[in-house]
Amino acid sequence: MAGGTFSNRGAGAMMDFKEQMCRWIEFIEGSLENYIPKQEAFPPVIFEAMRYSLFAGGKRLRPMMVLAACEAVGGDKEEAVPFACAMEMIHTYSLIHDDLPAMDNDDYRRGRLTSHKVFGEDMAILAGDGLLHNAMEVMAEACNLNPCHKTTGAMQAIAQGAGIHGMLVGQVVDVFYEGKPLDRKTLEFIHINKTAAMIRAALKAGAILGGATELVAEKFALAGEKIGVAFQILDDILDVTSTMEELGKPIHSDEKNEKTTYVNLYGIEKSREIAFRLSDEAVSIWDELGDSCNFLKGLTKYLTKRTN
Amino acid sequence: MAGGTFSNRGAGAMMDFKEQMCRWIEFIEGSLENYIPKQEAFPPVIFEAMRYSLFAGGKRLRPMMVLAACEAVGGDKEEAVPFACAMEMIHTYSLIHDDLPAMDNDDYRRGRLTSHKVFGEDMAILAGDGLLHNAMEVMAEACNLNPCHKTTGAMQAIAQGAGIHGMLVGQVVDVFYEGKPLDRKTLEFIHINKTAAMIRAALKAGAILGGATELVAEKFALAGEKIGVAFQILDDILDVTSTMEELGKPIHSDEKNEKTTYVNLYGIEKSREIAFRLSDEAVSIWDELGDSCNFLKGLTKYLTKRTN
Repeated sequence: MAGGTFSNRGAGAMMDFKEQMCRWIEFIEGSLENYIPKQEAFPPVIFEAMRYSLFAGGKRLRPMMVLAACEAVGGDKEEAVPFACAMEMIHTYSLIHDDLPAMDNDDYRRGRLTSHKVFGEDMAILAGDGLLHNAMEVMAEACNLNPCHKTTGAMQAIAQGAGIHGMLVGQVVDVFYEGKPLDRKTLEFIHINKTAAMIRAALKAGAILGGATELVAEKFALAGEKIGVAFQILDDILDVTSTMEELGKPIHSDEKNEKTTYVNLYGIEKSREIAFRLSDEAVSIWDELGDSCNFLKGLTKYLTKRTN
Repeated sequence: MAGGTFSNRGAGAMMDFKEQMCRWIEFIEGSLENYIPKQEAFPPVIFEAMRYSLFAGGKRLRPMMVLAACEAVGGDKEEAVPFACAMEMIHTYSLIHDDLPAMDNDDYRRGRLTSHKVFGEDMAILAGDGLLHNAMEVMAEACNLNPCHKTTGAMQAIAQGAGIHGMLVGQVVDVFYEGKPLDRKTLEFIHINKTAAMIRAALKAGAILGGATELVAEKFALAGEKIGVAFQILDDILDVTSTMEELGKPIHSDEKNEKTTYVNLYGIEKSREIAFRLSDEAVSIWDELGDSCNFLKGLTKYLTKRTN
């Protein structure tokens, strides 16, 4: 096993899960630096704004999943790095645009002022756009360095998860139904698309990059969807039960924005039960795929216990 | 020569240039329909908004250049269609976001109300995002259908032209300097990036898709840069000399937005002279590349005479 590998195979198995996660995060932070201009580049204002949101201490779950999935199927994580970084850029762009005054109008994110509060609305829109553009460029470059189904397939999985067959339409429906009553089917549509589609894409892209068969890549995708929906339900619960200090963003924001959530529709206990069930189903998929998925199994369990 | 080919080679040479242009436009409109969901798709609001701006009667210059460049080097235009459509989607997204209240705050575009006036600011932001996402997805799909340097190289050229090494930073500097005095070097930076980078990318991507050598593709890129800067200078002139009926958008918008333009810095006559010189230089490149570039030569000349 290569020295730079953090999954719990071989010697790595002794490492505590959280320690592994920290090493992944550190690796991702360093990698992101290679794929985004320094803020001295011209024009500095946009790179400052892009970096402000990108380096705001996120959990780096999506890039971690790309890299870990790639390794879990026996691939070399180095080949997955540009795609992992692109995932995080797309995720960050979506947060910047979601927080805009015309959308959720949030002042805080990850414990800091949101982009438009610091850089103005125009630069926040452009910083979001810039991150999405950069994700596309970084992936296109990686595809053109090594044009094959591994690279182009990963890019397609990510593009599908992010766009009009995934995250984007989830956000559209979320915004569109603000202040209106929402049925369970529509709420599920939002969760599957707004949150789960990107987690699904991260795991699927990683597996494709690592050389998985289509069948195996689909198993990663399915696990991702279950983890993603569970993650969003727990987010809805935390919005009600957590404190702003723990969460790094204002609590009760769903109530403020008159959003229907799993908590409104099912209550806290039933919501938690659904999330745990989905998480267990994902764990079963990791079990089926074997020991090489132990880190992803640990990550799945960790996410159901999170407090932020 | 295939029946569906519109460049003026063989029998096509008899066709009048404008007639050819109309046929290209018709072909592109039809192709765009294949790469964007009907507005009955869910959620309809976003597809209605994306389609409203995409089918607003643009000149389709950028996709036309992708297709014509591909044919000019002997390629099959069918292979270039997804990339041509992606170019138009990226161009349209950039117009929607440029028009937003936080940016230029324009009420009209192509003779119709701007996206945010019709769909609200939230949906306009998301419609722009959606078009950029869809461009990425359409290109990624085309690359994954046929992973090779032609497809991935074209995608990279387009991603570079659109993002933080092209259009996006041009827009950032344009917005940032609104109401502030601008020197010639900075104005040139804006024109090269905001407008010319995408025209450069269109011609380069088309040449790459058609199988051009790197050297030839760079000639297409260079011609594109010259055409693009000339195009923007003429746009600045039209903003002063045209009428709203002719232009389809409010005139004197640069003055309203306190923007420095070539007209402010050089005067109308000198500006026109610079644009014509750049256009002539592009024509020389087409002459050097031979008869297969006749349509592109005609297009270059046509653009310097345009009134909208």
